Amino acid sequence: MSDIVEALTAAFGATEVITGEAARERARSGWARLGAPLAIVRPRTTAEVSTILRLAHDHRQPVVPWGGLTGLVEGAYAEGAVALSLERMRAVREVDPVERTLTVEAGCPLESAAAAAEAAGLFLPIDIGARGSATVGGAISTNAGGNRVLRWGMMRESVLGLEAVLADGEVVTSLNTLVKNNAGYDLKHLFIGSEGTLGLVTRAVLRLRPRPTSQATAFVAVNRFDALPALLSAASAGLGGTLSAFEVMWADFYDLVTTPPAQGRAPLPRGAPYYVLLETLGSDAAADGERLETVLGEALAFGTITDAAIAKSEAERNAMWALRDDVGQTARNGPIYAFDVSLRIGEMEAYVAQVRAALGARWGEAASLTVFGHLGDGNLHLIAGVGARSPELQQEVEAAVYGPLASIGGSISAEHGVGLQKRAFLHLSRSPAEIALMRRLKTAMDPQGILNPGKIIAT
Amino acid sequence: MSDIVEALTAAFGATEVITGEAARERARSGWARLGAPLAIVRPRTTAEVSTILRLAHDHRQPVVPWGGLTGLVEGAYAEGAVALSLERMRAVREVDPVERTLTVEAGCPLESAAAAAEAAGLFLPIDIGARGSATVGGAISTNAGGNRVLRWGMMRESVLGLEAVLADGEVVTSLNTLVKNNAGYDLKHLFIGSEGTLGLVTRAVLRLRPRPTSQATAFVAVNRFDALPALLSAASAGLGGTLSAFEVMWADFYDLVTTPPAQGRAPLPRGAPYYVLLETLGSDAAADGERLETVLGEALAFGTITDAAIAKSEAERNAMWALRDDVGQTARNGPIYAFDVSLRIGEMEAYVAQVRAALGARWGEAASLTVFGHLGDGNLHLIAGVGARSPELQQEVEAAVYGPLASIGGSISAEHGVGLQKRAFLHLSRSPAEIALMRRLKTAMDPQGILNPGKIIAT
Repeated sequence: MSDIVEALTAAFGATEVITGEAARERARSGWARLGAPLAIVRPRTTAEVSTILRLAHDHRQPVVPWGGLTGLVEGAYAEGAVALSLERMRAVREVDPVERTLTVEAGCPLESAAAAAEAAGLFLPIDIGARGSATVGGAISTNAGGNRVLRWGMMRESVLGLEAVLADGEVVTSLNTLVKNNAGYDLKHLFIGSEGTLGLVTRAVLRLRPRPTSQATAFVAVNRFDALPALLSAASAGLGGTLSAFEVMWADFYDLVTTPPAQGRAPLPRGAPYYVLLETLGSDAAADGERLETVLGEALAFGTITDAAIAKSEAERNAMWALRDDVGQTARNGPIYAFDVSLRIGEMEAYVAQVRAALGARWGEAASLTVFGHLGDGNLHLIAGVGARSPELQQEVEAAVYGPLASIGGSISAEHGVGLQKRAFLHLSRSPAEIALMRRLKTAMDPQGILNPGKIIAT
Repeated sequence: MSDIVEALTAAFGATEVITGEAARERARSGWARLGAPLAIVRPRTTAEVSTILRLAHDHRQPVVPWGGLTGLVEGAYAEGAVALSLERMRAVREVDPVERTLTVEAGCPLESAAAAAEAAGLFLPIDIGARGSATVGGAISTNAGGNRVLRWGMMRESVLGLEAVLADGEVVTSLNTLVKNNAGYDLKHLFIGSEGTLGLVTRAVLRLRPRPTSQATAFVAVNRFDALPALLSAASAGLGGTLSAFEVMWADFYDLVTTPPAQGRAPLPRGAPYYVLLETLGSDAAADGERLETVLGEALAFGTITDAAIAKSEAERNAMWALRDDVGQTARNGPIYAFDVSLRIGEMEAYVAQVRAALGARWGEAASLTVFGHLGDGNLHLIAGVGARSPELQQEVEAAVYGPLASIGGSISAEHGVGLQKRAFLHLSRSPAEIALMRRLKTAMDPQGILNPGKIIAT
């Protein structure tokens, strides 16, 4: 038994420390690549997390935090590490309807947190596909995005305060509940989006919003790229702050999700180069619906859009969203490589053409590129296929997708984070001075490098 | 001539380094207490800022950044320091109407930045009283708040990227223009709200919003405290995201600003314990006005409010805001002590009563307390009078105002920052672990302690 396992066993009892084949089996049970952890521990309290980190610190033992294990960049890879799972710290501690705050433990699934908000007549705006498994702590550590960033921002904007355990086991409880608090450095930002490399989040205070009571959804066709930002501007201005989604699908994506075996039916005829799903969340169904019709009517008159369908029922709304969410179709014709980038809207058309050309030049007929995403946030998802899958091919495809971002100030990661998977490309989006400052922070916060080591930047 | 002055003179020329009586005279010319700086330098470029900090670092010479010098907590106090004024770095570099970004130098006044946004048909939401002098860099360093935080957040939420010069002169250019960018640590948060103690901001990319085209303003009377959060909830939910201001005045404040010599006329009869100024910014004048009337009509019917006036002209709107802004009246009856705190709305009534009682118990008839503020953000401004002014009295008043915040999780600084003035009270709002972590960051970023030393935390 290794020293750290012995120390953990002494502190918590043998049944509480999962090791050997049992640990490897758990690591294999999800879909993410997690490696073979030395041990898995599942603390029940912040004090227990502190004890674990103190012991790990004493033994210079790497610790990898585990939330819902739904991340897409191998941020939870735990080969040889102690995996610290937050699965037993999932309580909703408090919902305060007057201050509109929700206090939760980090292991609470996003969906449970949202349900607690809803039960109090309020609204947690963060919503991602993995909502049922992804945890609040994971969403904080990765600064999760999702479908409503346009209106309410990323996870960072929904965190008022948090509690984190530092590398040496020190607990920093900073459970601020106030929208405005300039009493010294705003420490929470150290832990939001740093993927568990600077501290381990154990609790959080989330900001809730008034629950929208009206929803209007439309699906439109657009016949040239530069009409997309024009439509976004017109919708942002004309819908007075209620625009909550502006999801664009390139024709390739639309064709895929409206062609069997996909279940989706096309709300508009095929043939346009772009389709947009717009949604507003407001408080006045009649007025909101009218305004959306007005904005779309003007867009039709100006030629910004060429066709439009407004959802007339919950079923029609769900059918529109089902198209956007049927991302699985992109894998039906062979192995794929999925990307999450952000760039200026004005650069998107040329960028997509450049990636498409590079893939075509290298792989010819075998190359495919399917594009969709949160255009309102500058965020595109690219799904590339080249007919096969191997680590070598992956490197080539990654170079084709990430390479052009460097010169146009794009980001290799809009919302998924860096983890292990994008680490080698960080230099395309960050300068040597920025990466040096990241290292300086890492060294200051975790001098022994035991917190999720190797993630974001190489150790 | 001191070594650092010699080094600066060698680098920039004698006419570029202001010293002696000329420097002291400049420091006396504003209204803030600035001390007697050893020298004042006014760089024109980031490279010059870098040179100054490199020389200061070599000489272990404290440097204090100067923006518009409108801060309220002695954050620019520069006794014996090199004052680095950004007054020559005030250019608007770029307005991008498609991406809705504004790139500016840090010395650009907020008002000029807002005007550049407006000229492009867009909107910079940050607005504070000192807009004509306060700079973008100062607003970033102090994470400025103001009148529209309720809708668009503090300055932090309007900063997409920035450039900062570190203590040793290293330039970190992180001029991100993207709403979503999870490529590693989000370094800008180190510099936002840290009052120039971790780095010196030289440029920034600000996020612009669609320009609101309709504005509706109302003034209402409320006869009990707990109706205020009820009204806030009803307005937030009922106005569908357009509510942009919710400014509360306690009766003392309302009486003061509507009684000569104040110029303001009372839009509603006196006698209510609370008055609220509400405002919406939207895109549809007719519908927005109607919704505001509906919300207020329901509030009257439910007894949440007892009276209401809706501005029917720009003149009426300006008159309502003029009441809120006539803060100078609070000084007309003698010396005052002004405070900027935040706390849970549910704690406010008891807190104000407690402070009032403490002042009354100690100073009897001489005590006065005038209260107003951004209630929608949990932010109150308290203006206390005790008949005289002295450093000793100030300490006593501060103890009475700040003391009760500790046990209720309130903040000694909602939006003004800490500077020198609130440093002694930081422990009331931050735990020893939080302050230790602030110190750890400070040491990592500025090991010699030359950046705005002594501000926020004692050196």
